[in-house]
Amino acid sequence: MASWLPIPKNSPFSLANIPFGIISPAKVTSRVAAVAIGDYALNLSVFASSGGFSQLPVIQPHLSVFSQPTLNAFAALGRPVHRQVREYIQSIFRADTPFPQILKDNSTLQQEALLPLSEVTNHLPMQIGDYTDFYAGLNHAYNVGVLFRGPENALQPNYKHLPVGYHGRASSVVTSGTPIRRPNGQILANPAANPKVPTFSPCKRMDIELELAAFVSKSNELGQPVSIDEAEDHIFGVVLMNDWSARDIQAWEYIPLGPFNAKNFATTITPWVVLLDALEPFRTAGLEPGNQDSLLPYLREKREHNVYDIPLEVEITNAGGKPTLISRSNAKNLLYSFPQMLAHHTITGCNMNTGDLLGSGTISGKEDKTQGSLLEQTNGKNPLKLADGSERLFLEDGDTVVLRGMAGTEGNYVGFGDCVGTILPALKLEF
Amino acid sequence: MASWLPIPKNSPFSLANIPFGIISPAKVTSRVAAVAIGDYALNLSVFASSGGFSQLPVIQPHLSVFSQPTLNAFAALGRPVHRQVREYIQSIFRADTPFPQILKDNSTLQQEALLPLSEVTNHLPMQIGDYTDFYAGLNHAYNVGVLFRGPENALQPNYKHLPVGYHGRASSVVTSGTPIRRPNGQILANPAANPKVPTFSPCKRMDIELELAAFVSKSNELGQPVSIDEAEDHIFGVVLMNDWSARDIQAWEYIPLGPFNAKNFATTITPWVVLLDALEPFRTAGLEPGNQDSLLPYLREKREHNVYDIPLEVEITNAGGKPTLISRSNAKNLLYSFPQMLAHHTITGCNMNTGDLLGSGTISGKEDKTQGSLLEQTNGKNPLKLADGSERLFLEDGDTVVLRGMAGTEGNYVGFGDCVGTILPALKLEF
Repeated sequence: MASWLPIPKNSPFSLANIPFGIISPAKVTSRVAAVAIGDYALNLSVFASSGGFSQLPVIQPHLSVFSQPTLNAFAALGRPVHRQVREYIQSIFRADTPFPQILKDNSTLQQEALLPLSEVTNHLPMQIGDYTDFYAGLNHAYNVGVLFRGPENALQPNYKHLPVGYHGRASSVVTSGTPIRRPNGQILANPAANPKVPTFSPCKRMDIELELAAFVSKSNELGQPVSIDEAEDHIFGVVLMNDWSARDIQAWEYIPLGPFNAKNFATTITPWVVLLDALEPFRTAGLEPGNQDSLLPYLREKREHNVYDIPLEVEITNAGGKPTLISRSNAKNLLYSFPQMLAHHTITGCNMNTGDLLGSGTISGKEDKTQGSLLEQTNGKNPLKLADGSERLFLEDGDTVVLRGMAGTEGNYVGFGDCVGTILPALKLEF
Repeated sequence: MASWLPIPKNSPFSLANIPFGIISPAKVTSRVAAVAIGDYALNLSVFASSGGFSQLPVIQPHLSVFSQPTLNAFAALGRPVHRQVREYIQSIFRADTPFPQILKDNSTLQQEALLPLSEVTNHLPMQIGDYTDFYAGLNHAYNVGVLFRGPENALQPNYKHLPVGYHGRASSVVTSGTPIRRPNGQILANPAANPKVPTFSPCKRMDIELELAAFVSKSNELGQPVSIDEAEDHIFGVVLMNDWSARDIQAWEYIPLGPFNAKNFATTITPWVVLLDALEPFRTAGLEPGNQDSLLPYLREKREHNVYDIPLEVEITNAGGKPTLISRSNAKNLLYSFPQMLAHHTITGCNMNTGDLLGSGTISGKEDKTQGSLLEQTNGKNPLKLADGSERLFLEDGDTVVLRGMAGTEGNYVGFGDCVGTILPALKLEF
């Protein structure tokens, strides 16, 4: 698809994408809905109030959703509406647009509504009610299992029967670019000592987790599960996520109820929600298509191609230094799809609300330099080298981590944009 | 304190209490703030708009908080305001009220604002952002630890160093009286089999957990911990909570990330928030006052009397049957206080928002018939007898569970009211 708008060939926001987000235009604090296209954000509030949607009757009664500070109201309109709005916006930007008068030949509206991405401020796209993080990255679960229990018992007995997950902290989900303060907490300076006595310390094993995350659009009532066949239509779209992890805090606290303070200080997501329809061309078979048949029926999907082929990468830049690409992975390294996660989450009757966030779990490959966490890459023992020759077991203060993910080919990429965070030194607390 | 309003001597809502909640008056769907007193709710929206607060200048700029559908805005005003509002309402109801013209001698306002509790509908008192459940019930952790690991290793090494907790599901927190649908899920019909193969089934080990829970009033910024000395002023008040638990789902799913579907289908709380100031007279030393000294400084409280002496009880009534009191416990059976939980939760910089809910964990005694869960009472093996002679290992469909908690003495009780839920049969799902 060619556009009349110049779109860089390597942009994650090609005409094939049209992701939705929440922005503040330059020098404005109020928040409005937008889509990203090339190097621009289209301010949907201005676009709507200027008659931009005049050729799309279905959205007419709902134009106010684009002037709200979150996408929740838009998401709640349901997938058929999202689909039509996205396709309509694509049609507006196509070189052969049937509606040139709306934007292509309307320089006034271009001036008002097409804002350089470099001049807008991104915000969290949704008001997140509950955030759940799954553990569906098979290779990650295996890699970590090997570290803790050896290859024979790497995967727990439940792993191939259900998408293991846990409730996460919603309040500390932040958007890309937010600095990440290294947490303080309890760690074991000497894990081998007995009795075990914790010390108070800044986290010394600060790690990342490379994940995708899906936003819920359609809610379900408490007590009413969402079936696997309906689940996809309850999902709005997908973002890239860094589930920052304090490994030393986690190791001490997590028995028996799981990670808590090790994860609650920050989780970074990309600000642009890529709709499932934009990812549809990149569907592929999961790691173990045969596993579908051994699942209980409530988790069995009708199609084998239930995950997405999205190349992912992790880059670290030390303070003042050069970027180092430390890992290349792919979103197809998931044993369970988002619809399976949603069907499992709600099989008990658990109610999901518009804006709830479902993390995939860390997405790792099997080989070296394909892992989605430093724990897997270094095991805290075997340092990786950065471009300037310095070494890392875990993150240091001043390090900037960038996650990226783009599906497709040059000129037609469907990507998330950068998921960025820089580590600030821990607070010095006095007691 | 004597009141001009007749208050039954056994009421949990004596003049010493004055808990806050959200109600809809009879035949009205809109939600307003109220306090409970004896057998009545005082509609604070009507009270405020009729000049009821005319003698309390501090609340004058904020009267609209009482006409909102949650207590969040009121809670966010901070503890000094809550304290003055509560004391003012007490003064209005005192037999020797200095302001008789406001309500005592104002039969019109009494008619409009004093509503029989039996005629109002209670709602969730707060909009809950995040819900965290701790595990601070020392005897519960010990009892359950003995079942799984024997008395030697009952408590995990971290237990006496930090309040173990995990993120819970906020969306399914419901108010007392909401029926509880037995969840379906994956369970191991034969846990001893190898390989382990789950079956899809209604939960067969449906349990309760007797807990207190605290609502957060004052928020903190991401990255800024709340110190142990400030923590109490970040807490609005306390409710009674039943953390319904599907033990068989939990046993299969919980490794390695903790409970998930076993808890996400419902959590019941009482609708009236008892302010910390109302509980202040019942402060007592915790189970192990000496443990304070061994804690890291960020968890050390200045006063030993950091928990509350609140007798608690659990009653089960089978369908159409008589109530059976199955357990008596006390809120002092907690190793950590709510301020300690909050200080620990935020030590990483995790941000809390007004309306966040912190569960205490199950509150059990050491002796038989003092446990806060059926798992501890029966271990799934030794049935308890109900009044009609029937036996229970876990809950059956139609069973009604009532939790109660009241501090103080006759005529001056400070209590929560009943925390009630009746088990509905699981949905029959077709695949």
